[in-house]
Amino acid sequence: MSSNRDIDALIDMMAKLPGLGPRSARRAVLHLIRKRALLMAPLADMMQTVAANARECLNCGNIGTGDICDICASSARGNGILCVVEDVADLWAMERSGVFKGRYHVLGGTLSALDSIGPDELRIPRLLDRVQTESVTEVILALNATVDGQTTAHYIADQLEGRVALSSLAQGVPIGGELDYLDDGTITAALNARKPMA
Amino acid sequence: MSSNRDIDALIDMMAKLPGLGPRSARRAVLHLIRKRALLMAPLADMMQTVAANARECLNCGNIGTGDICDICASSARGNGILCVVEDVADLWAMERSGVFKGRYHVLGGTLSALDSIGPDELRIPRLLDRVQTESVTEVILALNATVDGQTTAHYIADQLEGRVALSSLAQGVPIGGELDYLDDGTITAALNARKPMA
Repeated sequence: MSSNRDIDALIDMMAKLPGLGPRSARRAVLHLIRKRALLMAPLADMMQTVAANARECLNCGNIGTGDICDICASSARGNGILCVVEDVADLWAMERSGVFKGRYHVLGGTLSALDSIGPDELRIPRLLDRVQTESVTEVILALNATVDGQTTAHYIADQLEGRVALSSLAQGVPIGGELDYLDDGTITAALNARKPMA
Repeated sequence: MSSNRDIDALIDMMAKLPGLGPRSARRAVLHLIRKRALLMAPLADMMQTVAANARECLNCGNIGTGDICDICASSARGNGILCVVEDVADLWAMERSGVFKGRYHVLGGTLSALDSIGPDELRIPRLLDRVQTESVTEVILALNATVDGQTTAHYIADQLEGRVALSSLAQGVPIGGELDYLDDGTITAALNARKPMA
């Protein structure tokens, strides 16, 4: 309760963001009001721009501000390698590493019998189309190492087998990871995929 | 890096809010984009409204959307009791309790020799004016229980002595507090201010 209707409404909406509760929403709004010229007005403008223009790329499912996202539109990224991810957050994580130079395909979830999500609920038919029509040479299945993620990876691998080179992300000890803190599954995977030292 | 310039700019601005870092800003922006019609557009609109209209009340220093805040404008709140707080966040906290029915005076900080903040840097002259011109019968000094807060309270008490009834918030054990976890100062204050049982 800030004693003002508009400010209260703003706090209520901010409190709906993930990671913010009522207390941190109040702090954030007070901070914004104190910096209303430098931060709040530009933030509101940019939020309006993005709210008006953000949409899913018709080609890959990434979020951009046009019908085709910047990655699909860039000819430099058309190297014939397609990286399949579950959702846009995963795509952003891959992009932050800066190491992948091909294009993406965002499934929009994983297959799940429990939630009755089949291939047609995901962007899987579109993936099979793209492998056909774009000159794709390799598909990297960068799905999460969860049961649903791996089920989905196997399903896609079945569909694409023989038509294109398939690979998945390596599993093992994370960089900076300490064995003592790792779960048994990760250690088993790292041991099974051990490499001869150069 | 979201691969889109506008979305990246939005994430950068969101990451400047207190309590949000780059990772939680990305989560928040992705959430907003997914709910762009229901949450993002109204939030952007309300943020623009508040950014355009928010200002400090000329009378008490509270933040509102007009020259005079809703509390100062409400005749129901003019009961002659004035509650002095350090900043707007403290006023909001008092309002949430819902128990105080008078008006406020927001100092905008505390006296601090170290930061060379004197009475004229705060809203203290205006407070003395208000006690004179509004028919104030009691001033409650609701300043934080810190060294600077208490110094400021003593300075204001000196200025107002004999002109109006003065009080300060009670100090003691917080509701739900366990003695074992309280600091020595709080226990000393609670013991010194002990009350006979009814």
